[in-house]
Parts: sequence; structure tokens; C-alpha cells
Amino acid sequence: MLDYQAPERDIEFLLFRLFDVSNRWADIPAFADFSAELVSAVVREGGRLAGEVMAPLNQSGDEEGCQWRDGEVTTPSGFKDAFAEMASGGWLSLSGNPEYEGQGMPKLLGCLLEEMFWAANSSLYLYGTLTVGATLCIDAHGTDEQKTTYLPKLYSGRWTGAMALTEAHAGTDLGIMRTKAEPAADGSYRITGTKIFITSGEHDLAENIVHLVLARLPQAPAGTRGISLFIVPKFLPDEEGEAGERNALASGSIEHKMGIRGSATSVMNYDDAVGYLVGEADAGLAAMFTMMNYERLSVGLQGLGASELAYQQAARYARDRLQGRAATGPVNPDAAADPLLVHPDVRRMLLTIRALTEAGRAFAMFVGMQLDLGKYADDEQAARFSQLLTPVAKAFLTDRGLDCAVLAQQVFGGHGYVREWGVEQIVRDVRIAQIYEGTNGVQAIDFVVRKIVRDGGETLNQLLDSLDPKTLPEAYQRPMRAAFTRLREATRHVLGAVADDPDQAGAVATDLLDLCGYTLYAWFWAEMVRVSPEDDFGRSKRDTADFYFARILPRTEGLAASVCSDSSAVMQMRQENF
Amino acid sequence: MLDYQAPERDIEFLLFRLFDVSNRWADIPAFADFSAELVSAVVREGGRLAGEVMAPLNQSGDEEGCQWRDGEVTTPSGFKDAFAEMASGGWLSLSGNPEYEGQGMPKLLGCLLEEMFWAANSSLYLYGTLTVGATLCIDAHGTDEQKTTYLPKLYSGRWTGAMALTEAHAGTDLGIMRTKAEPAADGSYRITGTKIFITSGEHDLAENIVHLVLARLPQAPAGTRGISLFIVPKFLPDEEGEAGERNALASGSIEHKMGIRGSATSVMNYDDAVGYLVGEADAGLAAMFTMMNYERLSVGLQGLGASELAYQQAARYARDRLQGRAATGPVNPDAAADPLLVHPDVRRMLLTIRALTEAGRAFAMFVGMQLDLGKYADDEQAARFSQLLTPVAKAFLTDRGLDCAVLAQQVFGGHGYVREWGVEQIVRDVRIAQIYEGTNGVQAIDFVVRKIVRDGGETLNQLLDSLDPKTLPEAYQRPMRAAFTRLREATRHVLGAVADDPDQAGAVATDLLDLCGYTLYAWFWAEMVRVSPEDDFGRSKRDTADFYFARILPRTEGLAASVCSDSSAVMQMRQENF
Repeated sequence: MLDYQAPERDIEFLLFRLFDVSNRWADIPAFADFSAELVSAVVREGGRLAGEVMAPLNQSGDEEGCQWRDGEVTTPSGFKDAFAEMASGGWLSLSGNPEYEGQGMPKLLGCLLEEMFWAANSSLYLYGTLTVGATLCIDAHGTDEQKTTYLPKLYSGRWTGAMALTEAHAGTDLGIMRTKAEPAADGSYRITGTKIFITSGEHDLAENIVHLVLARLPQAPAGTRGISLFIVPKFLPDEEGEAGERNALASGSIEHKMGIRGSATSVMNYDDAVGYLVGEADAGLAAMFTMMNYERLSVGLQGLGASELAYQQAARYARDRLQGRAATGPVNPDAAADPLLVHPDVRRMLLTIRALTEAGRAFAMFVGMQLDLGKYADDEQAARFSQLLTPVAKAFLTDRGLDCAVLAQQVFGGHGYVREWGVEQIVRDVRIAQIYEGTNGVQAIDFVVRKIVRDGGETLNQLLDSLDPKTLPEAYQRPMRAAFTRLREATRHVLGAVADDPDQAGAVATDLLDLCGYTLYAWFWAEMVRVSPEDDFGRSKRDTADFYFARILPRTEGLAASVCSDSSAVMQMRQENF
Repeated sequence: MLDYQAPERDIEFLLFRLFDVSNRWADIPAFADFSAELVSAVVREGGRLAGEVMAPLNQSGDEEGCQWRDGEVTTPSGFKDAFAEMASGGWLSLSGNPEYEGQGMPKLLGCLLEEMFWAANSSLYLYGTLTVGATLCIDAHGTDEQKTTYLPKLYSGRWTGAMALTEAHAGTDLGIMRTKAEPAADGSYRITGTKIFITSGEHDLAENIVHLVLARLPQAPAGTRGISLFIVPKFLPDEEGEAGERNALASGSIEHKMGIRGSATSVMNYDDAVGYLVGEADAGLAAMFTMMNYERLSVGLQGLGASELAYQQAARYARDRLQGRAATGPVNPDAAADPLLVHPDVRRMLLTIRALTEAGRAFAMFVGMQLDLGKYADDEQAARFSQLLTPVAKAFLTDRGLDCAVLAQQVFGGHGYVREWGVEQIVRDVRIAQIYEGTNGVQAIDFVVRKIVRDGGETLNQLLDSLDPKTLPEAYQRPMRAAFTRLREATRHVLGAVADDPDQAGAVATDLLDLCGYTLYAWFWAEMVRVSPEDDFGRSKRDTADFYFARILPRTEGLAASVCSDSSAVMQMRQENF
């Protein structure tokens, strides 16, 4: 019952109206070939894959789950064929390096496709996104030989990727990890240790699985500066570069999880496994972050995809389900009841999901555009904007993703709690996105400490300076100006307070991130109205924008007040009193 | 791993300090026998049952679930013995009518015990709470003969209760239900129809199951005024009043649910089943509401219990788990890392759970006290306060229950997403509490339309008049006064707007309910500080109150702004544009 249809109308609107990519990309040599026709065709084809191939396996994959037997993992029925179709269609090489058979597509476009794949089947797409992440890491830090060996195989999906960071005692705190790497005579290394929570660490969808493993060399400094990164393939590449001898790594078990049950999460044992150093010794964490930053935006898109999927289910149900009567009199007098849609509180729920989803899509594309401008147009400011906004995208899109899934489930009433309709699965599936790739608390601290405090708020101010409320439709100018002022003042307060108080940033980080997210969403709503056509679609945009400004944006008032409180509010409780 | 310990210290504080029951109950003849010693003993014994008998079956019950075979339902291992212990201990008769072997205990005390049972094992307690609800309904509306036949059996837990309202097409909108009741020659009725989502409709824990079924008599008026209430026992009482001949009702299947998997939710088929009319013909919905109002407060306590359970898990994990270092320097220099508790954002999550849980407990007891005063002290105003606040208790305690469960899961990071630790189960289990017994949207509409608009806001104003900020510790007086003003003004705005706009109340109902909930919680925090002892416990109360005022109460600013928006924000979108 979890039907999914890519929101093509909204995507076309955002691409060609809001972001005006036809003109914008004409100025970027690397994107000159991406014509409007080509882009629309890619969107259409991606939507087809998502809606017709991936989505039909979403509920069955959850129901069936993955099976572990003697170190081998079987994925749910149908995943193998669907993954092969995704791989052979080139969907894992979209943003890949053209020198190694990647397609060099703009990230802004990639965001839209990723959202679709996440929405359609997050468990299945996880096998893909880890693969894409691995290519980014190897492309950025690998040797030419490593790139030649691994990138084409990964881009084609014949091989897949996995990232092995977490150990049982070392999650967020990677500095205390224990996995060891010993140099071997041939220049390779021998990796020994146990990693947990390894998404796609073992499965049956590919010929080979390329693990990127963090480990310590002998005599490495303690903490995060003593961690190196290694490629540890399940099968060692033979002389032809094909999967050869089995390496000494194995899945010890898979986790029983709340959701994403079609995705296999392994405990991985590396037992003197052959590994190849990527980048410099002891600089593995920074190298891994290349991949993690990509993954963070991608995980944000998982939250967004869940919101869209949730909206589609709830809107359809609210249209079809007859229950109660409109307060203004029956709209459906010949039937026993009116559709749920007549009820203001049901509309509140649907409009909340929609307002957060459509603004979230514009926001994610904006972050993607900054990445593109930084990478392909040497726009240094855009690069800094992308760094500023990546933690916001990861945390805010996934926190709102859970909110939206829960609201959609609520629209279904009791039918939302039983497995049949699938909406409860959306809640279970999206919940992981707030946790993995750095918990949302870690994102908030990254945002406040590294992205705001470190440069005295300069990048954030530049971003806000670039968004001029005077350019917006008049009705939104005043509340937008007030919201920007609120965000600037709250940020100033935090910058003032952190000087004397090391706990201040962490104490209010989550609320400041939310304040920023809700404020920027208001900007995108007003902007969308500005460029909306004079038709039914445009009218919906205006209606949703009005809802956002009336009902959601006020949340920033409470958040701003909360951000301006002292850290003592959280720090004064004695540890032993918790 | 889902350990639970009843929060006895907080309970004693609330009973004897905040609500001063020793003095208060001395003035109520029905409660004169409930000495402090007796009350403490009941709390202790209830805590033992919850922590030692019910809690150990919580995770195993979820894992195993219920099994359906040919209409028979098997509950998870251990449930039978645990339920027998609960029943034989008299825990289902606490608030029961003493004339029929009930214990006539104050509801204020019953709230605390219910919270414990919900926290320890919500699936198992559901078999009990439906039973208690059935006794309330029969006690209020049954004949003497019905009371004599059913009440002692239900109080003792030898028989259990179930309420059969929902049909596949009729959930919130009970007026369109189709189940039929035909009069029989002997004065009984024959019930035919199919009901869904029937909690405890069939199981193996009791000798008999007493269904309270809503159905239509021939020629009954259409809509909610043509619904009658019937007792439909699984086994008809024989001449000795024991379970005799099998009645014509059966479980057609059980639901596969997101959570509360140890609770069996049946599709029930009534096929010319013998039923006995309860109360007047066509007045069944009002009679059922006696039970539903009780159940609504009880379901609120389910949300509260989940919050407490979640807090206990997260606090323990945050104390024990070593990860990262304090921003102010290592507190645990000899270990590899500091406990999670040093991190301000982790404290924010824990304090949020705690602030919402402890205020929620005080609030629920306050509602219980109003019920007691209304019922046993003829306090008409208290009775109206209890009616005003019941929907708030149901919706606000359960919405915050989900928030708290999600936050606790977040404290665990990846370990919160795997089944092993059990916190993901708390999220799945509590989610139903926002849906059943009237969705939280229905509660909000009840609150605004029936409890505020209908009397022009008089009861709410009386309640606020009775809460004088001048009596609070000084630091809280100003923000409390501001919060009350905000709530009063928002309410006034709604009362003004509803006159011309039938959609206004529904449009802002949820936000007004939340505004009321957060405002009252602030009152209880300040009150708790007022009566707190000068020790470590009292210090924790003050620290948590400070957190609440600094970080949670500001949410009311955004809610008040949202409540004061026009209904057009939700109504202007055309139906076809959703």
C-alpha cells in the first residue's frame, strides 16, 4: 500500500523556476551539457525507477527483513533484481568523476534523485548510498591506481561500499577506537578488530564489497589524530581487477532493528584482513569526513523522502476516507460522511507535512547548489555556505522527517498503527536518520561550534545578508525581516556567551539549529511564492506559504527565547541527581 | 534490559507534600480510612508488582507477540501468571464500588498505580485497564442485577472487559456504525456485526470476556442518537453466575501492529450473539463515554508511564556510557572518556524528559483529585475542572510521551535503534496512546469546542483564577503571570473568532491544547519548588524547574501566536489541491 510517485511537478518548478538552472548552469562549463530536456528526462526516468521498481519492494522488504546464516546475508526477495536495475541504469554514478566513468552531474539534481530513492525504499537505497559515499572518499583521497581499480566497479554497482567506523565502545567518540592496522611486507596492511553497525557490510547484491575501515597504526598518537583509513575489500582484486581471493573479514551477525529492516547492519570482524592505506597515515578521520559530509546531506534527503512519502499516503487517505461532517455543513450530502479533508485539524496535519516537505526540498537543493558552485565554479563563499548548512540539512530534514511521518500516521487514526497500510513503517524507517551519520545532537554542535562560533558568525551573516526580504512578495516581508532579526540576535547572544562558558554552545545548539532551519524555510516559502505561476499549482504554493507563516514560523519565537538562556539551565543539575 | 523501578520518592513527595493528602482526605468521609501508612504500603506493593512481575515480561512479550489460531488467542509466555497476580492482588478493583467488592480508593492514588503498570508493561496492563473501564460503565449504567453479576467478577480479574465501538468504516465517526441489535423474546437482544481494533477482545487470561458493544436497535434514529449499549459476554452467565454457555462471538483475526504487540487486538464477529441492554435504548454513546472518559485519563497515564520508563533507561545509559570529554575538561581523567552526562546536549534531552514527566505526574494527580472532589465531596467546580482537563491529560501526556520516548532513544545513539536495549519498543508502544480512545485531534476539539467555547471560557478562567502566581517562589512569578496572560488572551481570541467562523475552533484546537498543557506544567513546577525540601531531592526539583522555565515554557510564545491566526490558514487550500 506504500505507493510512491515522484513529485515531478514540484521538481520541475524548483529546477526551472526557483533555481532557474537553465540559465545558471549555462555559466558553469562542467554543466553546459545538461539541457532542460536532458534534466527532465533524468528526473522522469529516476521517478520511474523509484515508483515502479523500488517502491513495490518497500513493505515486503520490511516484512521479510534480512537473513543471516554462517556469515552470509540474504536480502529480501526482489532486492537483487531491483538493485541490479538501479546499478545498470547508472544511478550510482550520477555525481561521479567522469575520468573514471562517473557522470559528473550537478549535486542539485542529484539531491532530487536521492530524495526519490530514499522515499521509495530507504532500505534498498542504503546499499546504493554507501556505495556512492565510498566513491567520493576514494576519488578525493585515493591513489590513481586505487581510483582505477575501485571507482568504475563502484559506479557501476557491480561492487558496493561500506564504511566501518563504530566500535561497541566508540560511537560518536571515534578517538577511542581500538581496531589495529599492522604494516605488511608488500606495502599493504593487516587489519584486526570488530566494528558494529556496519550498514551494507555484508549482503548478496554485489560481486564484492569495498569496506572503508578506520584503524590505528602501531605507535599512532592517541585520539582522533592517530586514526588511518584503509580499503578492505571482501574479495581482493586479482590481476584483471576483478574480485579474487576472499579476504579475512566476515559478518558476525546482523542487528534486529526498529526499521530499515531490509538493510543489513552487520557486526564485522576483521581478522588480519588485507587493507590498503587511503591518503596519509593518521589522517584517516579527515578523509572519512569527505564521505561523511556527502552522506550527511544524503541522510537529510532520507528525512525529506520520508516526508514526501508520508504526505502522499496521508493526503490520499484524507481524500478517500469518509468520516464526520464539515463544521460548515455537509460537502458530501449523498454519502454517509464527508472526507477527512473537511476537518480543520486534519488539514493542519497535512499542511504541516507539506509545508515542511516542499520547503525542505528547496532548502536541500539550495545546499546542493552551493556544493556545485564551490566545486565547479570556484565560488569560495558558496563552499562555506555548503559547510555551514550541511549539519542543518542532516538534522533539520530528518527531525522534521520524523515529525511528518508521525503526523501522517496520525491522519490514519487506528489504521496508521497497523502494519497493513505501511505508514507506521515510515515512522520506524526514518527514525534512524536522526541517529546515524552523526546524531542530530552532533550535527547541532558541529553547526554552532565549528560553523558559527569559529568564524564569529561571519558565514551565517553573509548568508543572511544575501537574502533580502525586500525582494519577497510584500505580505511576507515584515515577518521575514522579524525572523531574520530573531536569528541574528540569538546568534549574537550565543557568540557573546560562549567566550566565558565552554558549555554554552552545546547547551543551546539544537535550538539554534532549529531556529535557523525554520527561518530559512520561511525564506524559501516566500521565494517560491515569488516565482509561482498564476494557476492552481501556484495557488497551492501561496496557500501553503500562508500556512507556514501563520502556523509554523511562530515556533521561532520560543526557540529564540530558549537559545538566549544560560547554560546553567542544563548544567546546574548535579550528575548524581540524574 | 527494560528495567523499571517505581519513582517512589517522587510519589511520596507529590502525595504528602504537594497534594498534602493526609490533611485533604481527612475532610472526605469516603477517604478517612486511607492513612499515610496504608497509602505508602499500597504504592510500595504496586511498585513491586510493576517492577518485579510486569516489567520483566515487557520485552519478551513484544518479541513473542500474540498468536491467533482458529479464533483462539494465545498471549505471550508469562502473561497468564502475571495477570493472575495482578488480579488476585486486587489491583483491578482499586477505584471500584465497595458495594460490589471494589476498594473505593481515591483516583489520585489510582493514577499513580496506573502510571506504574503502564510503565512496566503497557501490553499486559491493557488487559487490566479495559476491565476497569468496563466496571465503571456497568457501575454507572447497569441494573442492580447486572452489577451483581459482573462487577465482582471483573474486579477480581476472573473475567475481563473489552469495548467494541469501531467498525471498519466508522472510527471517530461512530454515528455511521452498522452493527445491529434485535430484541429477543426473553428481553435480551441478538447482536450482529463486525467490530475492529478490539483490544483484549479475545485472549487466554480470563475465564470470561465481557464485551461492551455499541449497536443499533431496529428503527433507531440515524447518527449518534440511535446507538445503544449492550453487554455481550463471551460465555453467558449460568444460574450460579459463572461462565456458562458459549455465546456467538469470535475473534476473526488479530492485528499486526507497530507496538503493544503483547496486547491482542481483534477483529470481532458478533453473529446473532446474546446481548443485554445497558441503560436506556439509543443512549448508548453517552453511557460508553463514562468508560471512555475514564479510559482517556488512563491513556494519558500510559503516555506518562512511557516517559518515566524512557527517562530511567536514558539516565542510566548516560551515566554509564563513556563517550567524549566535557567541554570544561575531563571529569573522568583515568578512563578513556567521560560519561555522556557531561555533554550539555545530552543533559538537555534528559532534562526535557524529566521536566515533562514530573510535571505530567503532578498534573495527572491534579486531574485525579478533581475527579475525587467531584465524586466524593460534591464539589461541582472540581467536577467541571476534571471535565475540562481530561482531554488535555489524554492528548498532552501522550504527545509528550512520544517526545520523551524519542528523546530517550536519541540518548542511546545507534544502540537506541536496535531491539536489544528496548528503548525503541517504548517509542513503538507509546505511539498508540496518541491514537486510541479518541485521537489527540479529537481530544483537542473536545477541549476547545465542548469545554471552552460552550461555556464561554468560564471554567478555564475559574481554573486560572484559582492559580495565583503571587503564591509561587518569586523567581517564577513573572514568567508564570506572563504565561497565564498569554493563555487567557489566546483563549479570548479564539472565543471571539468562533462566533463567525465554524472552522476556527478546529483550526487551532491542537495548538490551544498544547498552550494550555505547557502553561499548567509551569504552574506545577513552580508549585513543586514551593513545597520542596531543602535537600538533594529538593535541589533537583529546583534545577529541573529552572530548566523548564528557561527551555520549555518559551514554546508557549509560538503556540500563542499560532492560535491567534485565522482559520483561513488551514481552510483556504482547495480540497483538490491536497
